[in-house]
Amino acid sequence: MQVALISYTAEPERTVAAAARLSTSPVGAAELLQRMTPEQVASLLQHLVEAGHLSPFEHASFTFAVEGISRACSHQLVRHRLASYTQQSQRYVSLKTLPFITPESIAAKGKLLGSYQAHMEASHKLYREFLEQGVPAEDARYLLPNATETKLVLTMNARELMHVCGVRLCLRAQWEIVELFEKVKIEVHKVAPFIARELKPKCYQMGYCDENESCGLIPTLKELEEDEAVTQGAGAA
Amino acid sequence: MQVALISYTAEPERTVAAAARLSTSPVGAAELLQRMTPEQVASLLQHLVEAGHLSPFEHASFTFAVEGISRACSHQLVRHRLASYTQQSQRYVSLKTLPFITPESIAAKGKLLGSYQAHMEASHKLYREFLEQGVPAEDARYLLPNATETKLVLTMNARELMHVCGVRLCLRAQWEIVELFEKVKIEVHKVAPFIARELKPKCYQMGYCDENESCGLIPTLKELEEDEAVTQGAGAA
Amino acid sequence: MQVALISYTAEPERTVAAAARLSTSPVGAAELLQRMTPEQVASLLQHLVEAGHLSPFEHASFTFAVEGISRACSHQLVRHRLASYTQQSQRYVSLKTLPFITPESIAAKGKLLGSYQAHMEASHKLYREFLEQGVPAEDARYLLPNATETKLVLTMNARELMHVCGVRLCLRAQWEIVELFEKVKIEVHKVAPFIARELKPKCYQMGYCDENESCGLIPTLKELEEDEAVTQGAGAA
Amino acid sequence: MQVALISYTAEPERTVAAAARLSTSPVGAAELLQRMTPEQVASLLQHLVEAGHLSPFEHASFTFAVEGISRACSHQLVRHRLASYTQQSQRYVSLKTLPFITPESIAAKGKLLGSYQAHMEASHKLYREFLEQGVPAEDARYLLPNATETKLVLTMNARELMHVCGVRLCLRAQWEIVELFEKVKIEVHKVAPFIARELKPKCYQMGYCDENESCGLIPTLKELEEDEAVTQGAGAA
Repeated sequence: MQVALISYTAEPERTVAAAARLSTSPVGAAELLQRMTPEQVASLLQHLVEAGHLSPFEHASFTFAVEGISRACSHQLVRHRLASYTQQSQRYVSLKTLPFITPESIAAKGKLLGSYQAHMEASHKLYREFLEQGVPAEDARYLLPNATETKLVLTMNARELMHVCGVRLCLRAQWEIVELFEKVKIEVHKVAPFIARELKPKCYQMGYCDENESCGLIPTLKELEEDEAVTQGAGAA
Repeated sequence: MQVALISYTAEPERTVAAAARLSTSPVGAAELLQRMTPEQVASLLQHLVEAGHLSPFEHASFTFAVEGISRACSHQLVRHRLASYTQQSQRYVSLKTLPFITPESIAAKGKLLGSYQAHMEASHKLYREFLEQGVPAEDARYLLPNATETKLVLTMNARELMHVCGVRLCLRAQWEIVELFEKVKIEVHKVAPFIARELKPKCYQMGYCDENESCGLIPTLKELEEDEAVTQGAGAA
Repeated sequence: MQVALISYTAEPERTVAAAARLSTSPVGAAELLQRMTPEQVASLLQHLVEAGHLSPFEHASFTFAVEGISRACSHQLVRHRLASYTQQSQRYVSLKTLPFITPESIAAKGKLLGSYQAHMEASHKLYREFLEQGVPAEDARYLLPNATETKLVLTMNARELMHVCGVRLCLRAQWEIVELFEKVKIEVHKVAPFIARELKPKCYQMGYCDENESCGLIPTLKELEEDEAVTQGAGAA
Repeated sequence: MQVALISYTAEPERTVAAAARLSTSPVGAAELLQRMTPEQVASLLQHLVEAGHLSPFEHASFTFAVEGISRACSHQLVRHRLASYTQQSQRYVSLKTLPFITPESIAAKGKLLGSYQAHMEASHKLYREFLEQGVPAEDARYLLPNATETKLVLTMNARELMHVCGVRLCLRAQWEIVELFEKVKIEVHKVAPFIARELKPKCYQMGYCDENESCGLIPTLKELEEDEAVTQGAGAA
């Protein structure tokens, strides 16, 4: 899997900070953008995150070239609607080769791996035969497995990146999309380190885990509240 | 493929009309809702469509249970972002059988059809074996083909339905999604006949075809403009 | 201020539950919709909220006729983008009278109230004069105050209603929009009591307050964490 | 009114082109971004617009600092939901002076202009008095007129800019928002001249006018069709 940041809003963190500062300032954003020190930018961003005032983070957008993810993964990804996608079409691009993704749970078992690879090869062979028999690519692709690699361009703003990473960096998310957003985070870190730091599982954002079955890293809200009850009981005693 | 309208905004067309009427009226919407005659509703909706004032159509939503479409089709469908989807998960539901979609271009050729069905059967057999070998469903599904059937619940408002049908009822769209929105249109027709009438290819909405390769039913804008030039030339002569 | 629910997705809670159940079920939504008992619906909705799986709540939409709110309030309201609005136009409707909103902080002080009312009257008188002098309504309205009443139709789905109420029912929100969503909640309660129960300030949803200055009703996360530290210290001691 | 482009997606047109090219190419976007010549970029963008394939234009975002527009104008502006806004708050910023907008239809008439300015002055004076009497800024602002100036930061992607300009550069739109988007267009032109060229009234985009009352610059669809009928009649004769 390759994830490359190919473009983004220039000075993303300063842009967010200038917009945020504007809302409670008599001075305009163009001037604020010039005037704020790096320390003021950092401290304001910190404050916004702590107070849950996330809308100014929408002013910074990031565009990624993503390659080598499965169609299973891209189907999940595009369910996030506050984003823009352009994806390689299986209707218009007929695949000369069939690059595919292999889950670790399969790669780890030699016997399964062999069957898996053979299935991929057989799928591609049949697909090519169907194309030669005159079946259009848009129909022949019905044979292709979820494992088939795809490429896409993804644009998301920083607020939505925070939300999506909250859900998709959770250890209970599907491994391939976890990897995708780990790489997104690394790319964002190169140009917007504060924002990158806020790309983290929702339990780190919220301070507790709200999953049905916690991975155990972070207490659930129920655990926090029970602790509080104990403390209060202790205080009362 | 089954498409069933399972719920919708009560009195969808009257609701749209009351909202639209409000924008240029001193009277409130609750009163307008009571007061408008069926003829006034019909005539106002007609006017809105002709003037391109489509936002009031957002007040009417339609919820469909969709079954028996391929994952190829659902991947396309969920690219429409102004809608709500809940889809059967391939991570959490392990498939006892593998219902699948067969494109007509394949069904029509006996020899291909046999290979196609055999491939589906082999895919499912391998999938079941992987599950038995302890591969989690979320990984075993990498074997499954695009043809695999899925189920989902889809909610769209009338404005977005008009837009999506504009694109997806075009004869150049992919056959499976064309069929999906033809069935959507039939369902909407039962409860909102005016709105259903406006669910049509964009060329019918716009009065011309803007595809690169027209299907020929409706003139392109270039053809319209050339005709006008001819007329004007004729008038000048 | 009047808020009337004028239309909504039929059987909103059952629709949400059937959609949610579909995602982990081999059975389709149309069948689930018939089959689920009221207890199953209630228990599933409860589970969704606890697990933070809110997307199925998007399948239920609610449409309200809102009257007697100020333009100050409507300007705030329409900042919520995942919703549909149709508003009475000040460009196309010229106001024969000037109904206006009076904040409690002004109404409570007799002297201010008099000046306030006189200002409203003077504003409207000038507005009418400008209209008579041939100024178009769209320009004469520049004279009108933020207090001027407006009417609108609002459609939101249940997920967005939960989010918006989380922000706008907070005691630190602006009083007029608090009142608006309190009335929205009352209306929703008539047809979807479970959903209405979840329309509450975000602190009740999250279990802690994330405002800079808490109103004190609910502990902040910092307070919860300190309590936990105390408990753990106590346990260690 | 000042509109300043304060940030944007780097290389906006090349980014759009690389994304678009990806959808029908076996090569990834990062490579395409490097490889495409300026001529290829220009020709692909042209093709996208002609074919109505506008989604790749979402990958380029533009952020503007806007100052000196009326609250009447900002209320209209924020109705466009596929955008991000941060606006100077009238709740948290109490206005020392009251900068305001004067419509041309009022400025042109000496007598009206005097009354208008006096009304603005009186409004501000009363507002200040109310603040001094302890009315909170969020309530005192109910006195302030629609003409009051506001500042905001606006982010829109190129696709939405095309749509919004289509509606708001129409000669029948309200003069202040027309001016706003004329300035937006000038700003975009500095960094993305092709995209700027496509920021134009919808009649130029569609080839005909769909307003109820055309300004006459561009024929209506009915006029185009009648011309075609004449031509065809002529051809038949």
